[in-house]
Amino acid sequence: MTIADRWLLPDGMDEVLPPQATRMEELRRTLLDLYDRWGYDLVMPPPVEFLDSLLTGTGTDLDLQTFKLTDQLTGRMMGASADVTPQVARMDAHSLKRQGPVRLCYCTTVLRAQADKHQGGRSPMQVGVELFGHAGLDADIEVLRLALSGLEAAGAGEIHLALSHIAIYRELAREAQWDEAVERALFDAIERKAYKQVDELVATHVSDPALARMFCELPRLHGGAETLEQARLALAGAPAAVGAALDQLVRLHRGVVSEHPGVSVYFDLAELRGYQYHTGMVFAAYVPGYGQALAKGGRYDDTGQAFGRARPATGFSMDLKQLATLAEREPPNDGIWAPADEDSALNEVINRLRAEGERVIQALPGQHTGPGAHRCNRHLVREDGEWWTRPLG
Amino acid sequence: MTIADRWLLPDGMDEVLPPQATRMEELRRTLLDLYDRWGYDLVMPPPVEFLDSLLTGTGTDLDLQTFKLTDQLTGRMMGASADVTPQVARMDAHSLKRQGPVRLCYCTTVLRAQADKHQGGRSPMQVGVELFGHAGLDADIEVLRLALSGLEAAGAGEIHLALSHIAIYRELAREAQWDEAVERALFDAIERKAYKQVDELVATHVSDPALARMFCELPRLHGGAETLEQARLALAGAPAAVGAALDQLVRLHRGVVSEHPGVSVYFDLAELRGYQYHTGMVFAAYVPGYGQALAKGGRYDDTGQAFGRARPATGFSMDLKQLATLAEREPPNDGIWAPADEDSALNEVINRLRAEGERVIQALPGQHTGPGAHRCNRHLVREDGEWWTRPLG
Repeated sequence: MTIADRWLLPDGMDEVLPPQATRMEELRRTLLDLYDRWGYDLVMPPPVEFLDSLLTGTGTDLDLQTFKLTDQLTGRMMGASADVTPQVARMDAHSLKRQGPVRLCYCTTVLRAQADKHQGGRSPMQVGVELFGHAGLDADIEVLRLALSGLEAAGAGEIHLALSHIAIYRELAREAQWDEAVERALFDAIERKAYKQVDELVATHVSDPALARMFCELPRLHGGAETLEQARLALAGAPAAVGAALDQLVRLHRGVVSEHPGVSVYFDLAELRGYQYHTGMVFAAYVPGYGQALAKGGRYDDTGQAFGRARPATGFSMDLKQLATLAEREPPNDGIWAPADEDSALNEVINRLRAEGERVIQALPGQHTGPGAHRCNRHLVREDGEWWTRPLG
Repeated sequence: MTIADRWLLPDGMDEVLPPQATRMEELRRTLLDLYDRWGYDLVMPPPVEFLDSLLTGTGTDLDLQTFKLTDQLTGRMMGASADVTPQVARMDAHSLKRQGPVRLCYCTTVLRAQADKHQGGRSPMQVGVELFGHAGLDADIEVLRLALSGLEAAGAGEIHLALSHIAIYRELAREAQWDEAVERALFDAIERKAYKQVDELVATHVSDPALARMFCELPRLHGGAETLEQARLALAGAPAAVGAALDQLVRLHRGVVSEHPGVSVYFDLAELRGYQYHTGMVFAAYVPGYGQALAKGGRYDDTGQAFGRARPATGFSMDLKQLATLAEREPPNDGIWAPADEDSALNEVINRLRAEGERVIQALPGQHTGPGAHRCNRHLVREDGEWWTRPLG
């Protein structure tokens, strides 16, 4: 191996250098403090778990994304966490076992075997919240508002929020009673908004003309607030649960605009992201200049069931690495440079300044680089036998 | 699989629940802020690297400790980081390429295939600093003081510092010119302080009587400050580098007690931890009640060489999970409980309180658990049409 080879990093496994690492740390604190003020308690999920617990109830997507490891102690298969949400659901169901609503938050690096098409990199730092134990829409409104508050705190100016509800397609598909192959083909066509293909599949496989019309309308129901009114008409004959889902979207919309009037809301009733585990509203928040959603979330009521305690659940997550690029401020030039001098009076001054919160860099004997390389705007100088902080010329 | 099986965690892969996770977060901030005030810049090493770069120049211990993964994109072997230090050395040598002294710090979870006998768990959160580019002892004194300051900030009352210097044994062994098998046997016996075995090995393999006497003395040279004086006499005929190492230990000792007079210092000249990569002073800090060292560090001057840029280096690391158990304060009971009410005036009050830094938990409709379960000591009540914060009865 050549030297150049040795320090190449695997694709999507990034190192973070100064000052970007400091920006990420600051944003980590901003977000965790925000979640704390809303009553969300911090948890740290294990970075590795047995594969059975990690993949229970999460669908095949996560399986393909998970790095597999052999446990030398037991011979059992383990997996590196690729998504924190099911882990936190297990912690709620089994480790905490609290009654009533439980609010949890986290900020942790996850590993992905393949880069997610919706999110860059194979080592995102996943930060987010989960609210367990409440099935009502108020819980969804709370996490949606908290997601938007976090994006704003991270420096997002213009936010576009895409809202949808998984129950709309799910209820229509249940009504149609297809076999699995047809369902998969239609699901795929609707998700891609391939109108022509949807129309053909519906013509072949849906005999009820009212239901057929609704399927053909579904991928076309996207746009601003008027979309919900169009959907009322287009889906008038649908099962009652579809109407209830539309009611929820109306309330969610109201809940967002009352607190975040600057956010533009977009509805897309054929958005089926996370269909395998989502059960209610789903959302994604976009910021101009970023091809991928910066925050994604929704309701997923059944995850805890596999661990013996089904709990309603709603939440969101973001990638701190992406978020930290929203506001790329330069770090301040605010340090104090101290000379390489073993004088105990100098030591005392340095200790006092650091205790007061100042950043003090002491030169090492023979050091050639100066204060400019260390973001210093002042230095310590001895005058009349005493040490003083003076501005750098 | 039964439900009970599904949520068992692999040995040493811990989850951290509230309030311990919050304690760890607070301590993380305390330490990173401390390092920042001493001029150490935060970096975040990649959680996974190609095995060649990860294990270059680090010896077989780290190889056995490293979880191996196949990169689906390239087919090359990757490893999960088991020790941050060589990664940071690579970042200094190749990514930053700065001239002169470079101070870096980090706080990141690492994975270990087997639990280290010296450190609990297979998923420690490694926190520490590295100082590159300065070969002088002042750099060692700085990192040693910073390690002790961090332990004190974490709440360590009584600290016992074990100091040693790798060059002492190394120079004697070089002088003896053994073959590898003899060297390994003697190394092992000295490290275990197996006096009898050392005496036997020396009698068989060391012909020079002065050198033989020094080897037999070495494992017996441990204790307080008087150890250094005993070593002066016992190792008087050793190569000059041994005397220089003893001089360094004297200066290190002075550098520690002048700033941390409460720390008790212990010397053990046969302490050979990290012999494969350490090149100068080594230290370990102990706190009563903990079987393992809470901070470990030392000088390791050759690590960067494998990446084409040999740089002097010294540093230390600690396990934040262990450290956070030093001061187990209960989290404060300081929240404000808000009722489930859609009143927009209430919303405004909640927003204002949160912006002021208060933790406000809003009840969800139908919630049965009360403010007591959420660490609240106040609640919001409506009196005469206005919302007021009142103590909970």
